[in-house]
Amino acid sequence: MSVVADVQLTAIALPGIPLIEPGDDLASVIVNGLDHAGLRLLAGDALVITSKIVSKSEGRIFNLQEVQPSSQAVEVARETRKDPRIVELVLRESRMISRHAPNVLVTQHRLGFVSANSGIDQSNVGLGEDVVLLLPVDPDESAHRIRTQLGHLTGVEPGVVISDSHGRPFRMGNIGVAIGVAGMPALVDLRGRPDLFGRELKISIQGYADMVASTANLLTGEADEGRPIVLLRGLNYPAQNGRAVDLYRSPEHDLYR
Amino acid sequence: MSVVADVQLTAIALPGIPLIEPGDDLASVIVNGLDHAGLRLLAGDALVITSKIVSKSEGRIFNLQEVQPSSQAVEVARETRKDPRIVELVLRESRMISRHAPNVLVTQHRLGFVSANSGIDQSNVGLGEDVVLLLPVDPDESAHRIRTQLGHLTGVEPGVVISDSHGRPFRMGNIGVAIGVAGMPALVDLRGRPDLFGRELKISIQGYADMVASTANLLTGEADEGRPIVLLRGLNYPAQNGRAVDLYRSPEHDLYR
Repeated sequence: MSVVADVQLTAIALPGIPLIEPGDDLASVIVNGLDHAGLRLLAGDALVITSKIVSKSEGRIFNLQEVQPSSQAVEVARETRKDPRIVELVLRESRMISRHAPNVLVTQHRLGFVSANSGIDQSNVGLGEDVVLLLPVDPDESAHRIRTQLGHLTGVEPGVVISDSHGRPFRMGNIGVAIGVAGMPALVDLRGRPDLFGRELKISIQGYADMVASTANLLTGEADEGRPIVLLRGLNYPAQNGRAVDLYRSPEHDLYR
Repeated sequence: MSVVADVQLTAIALPGIPLIEPGDDLASVIVNGLDHAGLRLLAGDALVITSKIVSKSEGRIFNLQEVQPSSQAVEVARETRKDPRIVELVLRESRMISRHAPNVLVTQHRLGFVSANSGIDQSNVGLGEDVVLLLPVDPDESAHRIRTQLGHLTGVEPGVVISDSHGRPFRMGNIGVAIGVAGMPALVDLRGRPDLFGRELKISIQGYADMVASTANLLTGEADEGRPIVLLRGLNYPAQNGRAVDLYRSPEHDLYR
């Protein structure tokens, strides 16, 4: 009656994480959080870090009083009933508007994914009503940097996912998704592996890093929990270096729309 | 340096689960799997069960040799280059075709969600090339029945999610989603809860049961692992009785399309 070792996954929200300020070194924050929990990084671990604290550490903070909306932003703000200064930032962060309507502004972000308001965030910023947070400039690079620094500090380079919370077509409710990935796969391609009866699986590419982000999101929540970093142990992910862009469908290959 | 107790989530794929046959009692199978792992159900636990074994236990097996395609199925099969008998079953299981193209047939399932091929599955059936598996007739009811039977067998009624693996618009890769829910929320509404700085969260409804399904999917895989049941401990879900249909956006309220 032995339990197979690789079928247990543990997710731990690191305790004692302080409010993050611009310039903070997240790798050191993570090492301190691991210390608080009495944990050490092991080979094969992964860390999921909310984009919010990555953005804050990178100083992606904008004061709306300093934003001058374009005429397009004013027009879109009128149609969506949003603050034209926020719309201006949403448009600057986007390739194109995907959908807009009263109280709705969905864009294709400059990074390639589709989300509400280009991921611009007014909650949990803590720097006043007129201050908003933009997503990191290059979340894959942020993930890579944090991974490398953790390697220097601990001797172990974990997989790193920078997570965001997105709405989606067809289904209600936000889920965790990966917007930055380092040292682990974004997609896991199971095609060609036999199923239980030797039949070849036809379509089986897992949105792996998104499911990792969703697992962490069950612990981080979105409100006042203050648990922005989750350690995942037991994933057994294949040794691949994915990038978040692997997860983005180009519109011309989107079979679901 | 204490670790807060409610910030750890453990997912365990139950060992020793046999191949499921029509008529098998999944609650008993689950109890045996827990025994194999040396585990007992605790209040607040959740079980994620793949739709595949629920379908098999419920005998949702169809022999294609007995399926007579309609003229519409023949036409759609020509356009999608699929087996007209499978297309016939896909159409019978759907409300409408959402998208079709060569090798692509996306439908709104009769249950309400949008997925490829109405969730009809030819892999891991193990009953011959011409045998396919349809989704359970009423997965919310299946989840409710398994939950109630587990209560009778163990004295604990866990949350239950019946999971499937879906592709999606905008993003690559399949993720785990909930198609049946009992004894736990499908959506968790965080609106009105203050964020860290007392600001009210504006849009925060979590696709909770989908993230639970995705967590389990990281362990179950889709190929030859034979790990169709995952115990989740430490979720701390609110006491709500969700239904999978809570997760399905009606097209007229779909802000993302």
